Amino acid sequence: MRVGIVMGSDTDLPIMAEAAKVLRDMEIEYEVRIISAHRTPEEAAEYARTARSRGLEVIIAGAGGAAHLAGSLAACTTIPVLCVPMPTTSLDGLDSLYSIVQMPGGVPVATLAIGRPGAKNAGLLAAQILGLKDEAIRRRVEENRIRMKENVLAKDRRLREIGIEAYLQKKNQEKKR
Amino acid sequence: MRVGIVMGSDTDLPIMAEAAKVLRDMEIEYEVRIISAHRTPEEAAEYARTARSRGLEVIIAGAGGAAHLAGSLAACTTIPVLCVPMPTTSLDGLDSLYSIVQMPGGVPVATLAIGRPGAKNAGLLAAQILGLKDEAIRRRVEENRIRMKENVLAKDRRLREIGIEAYLQKKNQEKKR
Amino acid sequence: MRVGIVMGSDTDLPIMAEAAKVLRDMEIEYEVRIISAHRTPEEAAEYARTARSRGLEVIIAGAGGAAHLAGSLAACTTIPVLCVPMPTTSLDGLDSLYSIVQMPGGVPVATLAIGRPGAKNAGLLAAQILGLKDEAIRRRVEENRIRMKENVLAKDRRLREIGIEAYLQKKNQEKKR
Amino acid sequence: MRVGIVMGSDTDLPIMAEAAKVLRDMEIEYEVRIISAHRTPEEAAEYARTARSRGLEVIIAGAGGAAHLAGSLAACTTIPVLCVPMPTTSLDGLDSLYSIVQMPGGVPVATLAIGRPGAKNAGLLAAQILGLKDEAIRRRVEENRIRMKENVLAKDRRLREIGIEAYLQKKNQEKKR
Amino acid sequence: MRVGIVMGSDTDLPIMAEAAKVLRDMEIEYEVRIISAHRTPEEAAEYARTARSRGLEVIIAGAGGAAHLAGSLAACTTIPVLCVPMPTTSLDGLDSLYSIVQMPGGVPVATLAIGRPGAKNAGLLAAQILGLKDEAIRRRVEENRIRMKENVLAKDRRLREIGIEAYLQKKNQEKKR
Amino acid sequence: MRVGIVMGSDTDLPIMAEAAKVLRDMEIEYEVRIISAHRTPEEAAEYARTARSRGLEVIIAGAGGAAHLAGSLAACTTIPVLCVPMPTTSLDGLDSLYSIVQMPGGVPVATLAIGRPGAKNAGLLAAQILGLKDEAIRRRVEENRIRMKENVLAKDRRLREIGIEAYLQKKNQEKKR
Amino acid sequence: MRVGIVMGSDTDLPIMAEAAKVLRDMEIEYEVRIISAHRTPEEAAEYARTARSRGLEVIIAGAGGAAHLAGSLAACTTIPVLCVPMPTTSLDGLDSLYSIVQMPGGVPVATLAIGRPGAKNAGLLAAQILGLKDEAIRRRVEENRIRMKENVLAKDRRLREIGIEAYLQKKNQEKKR
Amino acid sequence: MRVGIVMGSDTDLPIMAEAAKVLRDMEIEYEVRIISAHRTPEEAAEYARTARSRGLEVIIAGAGGAAHLAGSLAACTTIPVLCVPMPTTSLDGLDSLYSIVQMPGGVPVATLAIGRPGAKNAGLLAAQILGLKDEAIRRRVEENRIRMKENVLAKDRRLREIGIEAYLQKKNQEKKR
Repeated sequence: MRVGIVMGSDTDLPIMAEAAKVLRDMEIEYEVRIISAHRTPEEAAEYARTARSRGLEVIIAGAGGAAHLAGSLAACTTIPVLCVPMPTTSLDGLDSLYSIVQMPGGVPVATLAIGRPGAKNAGLLAAQILGLKDEAIRRRVEENRIRMKENVLAKDRRLREIGIEAYLQKKNQEKKR
Repeated sequence: MRVGIVMGSDTDLPIMAEAAKVLRDMEIEYEVRIISAHRTPEEAAEYARTARSRGLEVIIAGAGGAAHLAGSLAACTTIPVLCVPMPTTSLDGLDSLYSIVQMPGGVPVATLAIGRPGAKNAGLLAAQILGLKDEAIRRRVEENRIRMKENVLAKDRRLREIGIEAYLQKKNQEKKR
Repeated sequence: MRVGIVMGSDTDLPIMAEAAKVLRDMEIEYEVRIISAHRTPEEAAEYARTARSRGLEVIIAGAGGAAHLAGSLAACTTIPVLCVPMPTTSLDGLDSLYSIVQMPGGVPVATLAIGRPGAKNAGLLAAQILGLKDEAIRRRVEENRIRMKENVLAKDRRLREIGIEAYLQKKNQEKKR
Repeated sequence: MRVGIVMGSDTDLPIMAEAAKVLRDMEIEYEVRIISAHRTPEEAAEYARTARSRGLEVIIAGAGGAAHLAGSLAACTTIPVLCVPMPTTSLDGLDSLYSIVQMPGGVPVATLAIGRPGAKNAGLLAAQILGLKDEAIRRRVEENRIRMKENVLAKDRRLREIGIEAYLQKKNQEKKR
Repeated sequence: MRVGIVMGSDTDLPIMAEAAKVLRDMEIEYEVRIISAHRTPEEAAEYARTARSRGLEVIIAGAGGAAHLAGSLAACTTIPVLCVPMPTTSLDGLDSLYSIVQMPGGVPVATLAIGRPGAKNAGLLAAQILGLKDEAIRRRVEENRIRMKENVLAKDRRLREIGIEAYLQKKNQEKKR
Repeated sequence: MRVGIVMGSDTDLPIMAEAAKVLRDMEIEYEVRIISAHRTPEEAAEYARTARSRGLEVIIAGAGGAAHLAGSLAACTTIPVLCVPMPTTSLDGLDSLYSIVQMPGGVPVATLAIGRPGAKNAGLLAAQILGLKDEAIRRRVEENRIRMKENVLAKDRRLREIGIEAYLQKKNQEKKR
Repeated sequence: MRVGIVMGSDTDLPIMAEAAKVLRDMEIEYEVRIISAHRTPEEAAEYARTARSRGLEVIIAGAGGAAHLAGSLAACTTIPVLCVPMPTTSLDGLDSLYSIVQMPGGVPVATLAIGRPGAKNAGLLAAQILGLKDEAIRRRVEENRIRMKENVLAKDRRLREIGIEAYLQKKNQEKKR
Repeated sequence: MRVGIVMGSDTDLPIMAEAAKVLRDMEIEYEVRIISAHRTPEEAAEYARTARSRGLEVIIAGAGGAAHLAGSLAACTTIPVLCVPMPTTSLDGLDSLYSIVQMPGGVPVATLAIGRPGAKNAGLLAAQILGLKDEAIRRRVEENRIRMKENVLAKDRRLREIGIEAYLQKKNQEKKR
């Protein structure tokens, strides 16, 4: 395992699955764990303390509300810790964002966007980090960029060819299927 | 020691001294500690885990930014943990507030106001909690309430007697001294 | 009755019922009341003023919007007052949070998280406070912590055994039932 | 006395003096009081309950942080209660604003702007309300409007005559005096 | 007509109808108008300029987003202008609130809560203002307060009698009908 | 083509179609493109750099989240760039707004309202700009203003004639059709 | 005069002078006026209504707090109205921003950044708009862009040559002069 | 050079110097550049596109306001891009934070805390990333952690030995020197 995906609750799993999907596409070995900074604090500390010796090179944490998981892990390891703020019902994920991004000087946590785009980008950032020493991963990251670009160009072409109304109609039809 | 006042950095000390002052006035034994959830995570866990056996009945934490200290302590003990969000330069203490108050169900932290008023109230709330089983403390809390009330009534009388201008002038003179 | 759960409107009841549930599980006697700081101000003051003499040791208030209930009660008693900010439609509960947590120095209110997690934690914090002098309650609080921990560990094991896809599928099936 | 200006602390006095100044200019009798919703709750309730019978027609309250004063007064009287949210160091007066303006249906509080402009406007609004039955006050309100307008027109003329640089220079000189 | 209820768009009507309902209950004559500060600026200015001479004593405005209606009206009249910030889809009504409450010194607008509670309270505040010179209205306002209070007391009694579960069940049944 | 409507993703199309509709009504030639500042950065730069030489006079961009599209385009051209912040699920479009409106001195972007009203106004503002040198467009803009005004006046008349209840009933019926 | 710079109060003048400076540099004729939407509403409406016939092609407004000036002007003219939100002491200019940018569909206002950068950009955007039909202005806008770019390149070169410490030292020395 | 520190303006230099200081302490080669996404867009794209081939392994960007620099760089390279949101005068750095952290799925930017702590942590995170393949750097990162920890422990000891008053006095004396 080179990457550990950790979340405090299984309600975060549908979002964090995006990070796992990216790692699978990039052919990077990963594990997925439910560990809570508040309900299993010893397990959280233990997980981070032994991370490097177990071969982990990056930890991706998902946390919401008073989101302490990433900071708790980062306090116990020096491998990079990336974190995805979970959307929350009461404060729109702003509580998650603030309690993750505002880490004090000395213990960094790399914060990504709130929710799904952040989880996807956490997977990609992990791949970019591992790509610094693994040529095959780097190539897959770059191929992914090219696919994304071609995808945008194709949509742009289609829109120019068929116009707004037809484009929106087709998009709605595809959704329904 | 019945109350532990803990803060993550000595920059929080001028504010947390307000809590200490209240406890001293209430004749409640306390200790003051600098322990960081991020830089000394093991000490933080250890402090909370042994708190009750060392005789502590309440912990008052002061924390700022991605403020994990109170949550980290609360995760390792079942004595009440009160927390004062520190004012911060970039986000006005809102980052501290959100990362303290939005604790997940299961591990409560009692949040007070941001900064000095919160530190003072943390001391008072600790006294109110201890007052549930300690008659002398309860009496001191109630006397303190009466003094506060008399203080307001005295100011009100003075304002009515001398009027706004004279009142503001005297207040300014007192400040300068 | 050792704990009074008070709310300003019966629309807060589904959320505040979480606090009641915790107290019942902890075998702590409680009462539930609808008293409004704005529509029944005299009853609110009376309730708080007589709280201690009627045997109450903790008050849990639920309040939303310009949320004055907890502060009004705290002004008239020196037993600990805990407060749960209610979610609101227009300002996401931020109005409730600010009008509860920012109490002036001298009259503390212990603020919990917005909504359900806060209500649950208010019940737990009340139990932790009473546990300082009641051994049986303290034991139940600690057993609850252990159950929570085991629950997380069990989910973690299941996720590791069956993987993300199967886990999410089972979770969805359980929801539908 | 037709208007009561009430504030929770004498630190609000420099701002609330703006309301008093307007009332004096409008030749409306007023009183100024320091009464705290949290430290003198009984006095606050008593003040509001007897307001109408003592001849008061409008109450202007100034309150900051978890700002309950206006709501507490409004709960005990049916004369109009106007409120000025005080600026606060930690949350820029947003805590004051939210805890004043978001009153529940049934007990209105008329909220003005945060700080000095709000205090001035509270005085003017009180005058506008009293002007509904007092011709002399109404005339003074309208004369004040005309003066304000002429003041703007005069500045506009001066700026057009002497240009930006000279205008700013003169303004700086006037400040220094 | 003694009160004019004005809104910038008929989408505000369901909310502003709450203000109308209160005035009808209080037996106060009112008119309801759709006038836009941005799309019919001349009509808005004209409406306010002639308000007093047409017998209006209070204007209640409802406005959302960059909510200029109340300020535009207040600039052209010296009768009291009350304003209800409309909820908005993108910024939760915060844009409405800020653009209404932060009026500059000299031209007051009395701001109420965002949405329905604010509309109801605008009607009540208008009644409280008119009640200063109209004994019958004042009496109706006070009766309304008593009804509200009795309503809360009745709910409190019912809750104490039947308990949380039964209360919630009955409430759900009433909703369905 | 005189106006280019550009968006970073086809999910923005339903909103940006409002801008296109206005331009069509104003008989202004426009093109619609999907170009991403982050996924097709070279195409974005190229689009802006060649805009003026291809005859474009105004660019309307729609962008959400960390919304860099308008700024990236504005950095590469000196024709006016207008931008519509997209609503976002996590931060209510506030992230879009801040990352568009706070452009540094030197490279202006004209920001419109979040979402649909902003897209419509971007189309209108483009027409107003082109109307400075094109008499026919100017006339159409002014006719549009008059239609808007008459629309408000008609609704106002209808409301006055039939009253609130009937008006709301008819509106609901029209919606259902 | 081709551009009118309008502000509600002379306290906005130091900031709005930045817009004037840009127009002077671009050799565009402009006028500067103090007109208040709230204190001189008739003058504001008149100014906008006659703007086009007096030869104005763009209006730049500066407004703060409940910032209605730009919207009031835009309601009475169809030439482009640009607006600079003023910084405010209580809400950091957020009140200004929201009350300007969230204009309803139909009456656009082009919003720039809060404060000085926004004022500078308002001047530049006006120049870009006029540059669409005035070749000389367009050339000056482009020369300005090149100067800005060269300025950044020069700083970059200096930093690379002398390093961080020397660069910061020189910068501090230049400030002191 | 293994790390590139890039900022949009030399006003960001005092903060970004913190990142440089960490890299120097960690004996990691770095370069510092002033490149603006808005004023030198071609240089920004060129810098990122050639970053890997010039040997760079991590880019640290500092950006404020509508902060597009990091996103613009990340769009043109697949080496990790870390970003420090700059504090801003009008919106407290919230504009910087939102426009950096909310990157769309596909192009990750690792966001650190606002201002100095974020700049320091960007340097540390870069070191942690390089430490994955460079044993010497990894060791220095771990030594740094131990020094931080010992520093906290020393302060804690001193506070316990000399008490709050003496501690604060000594701290003030040290500041004055």
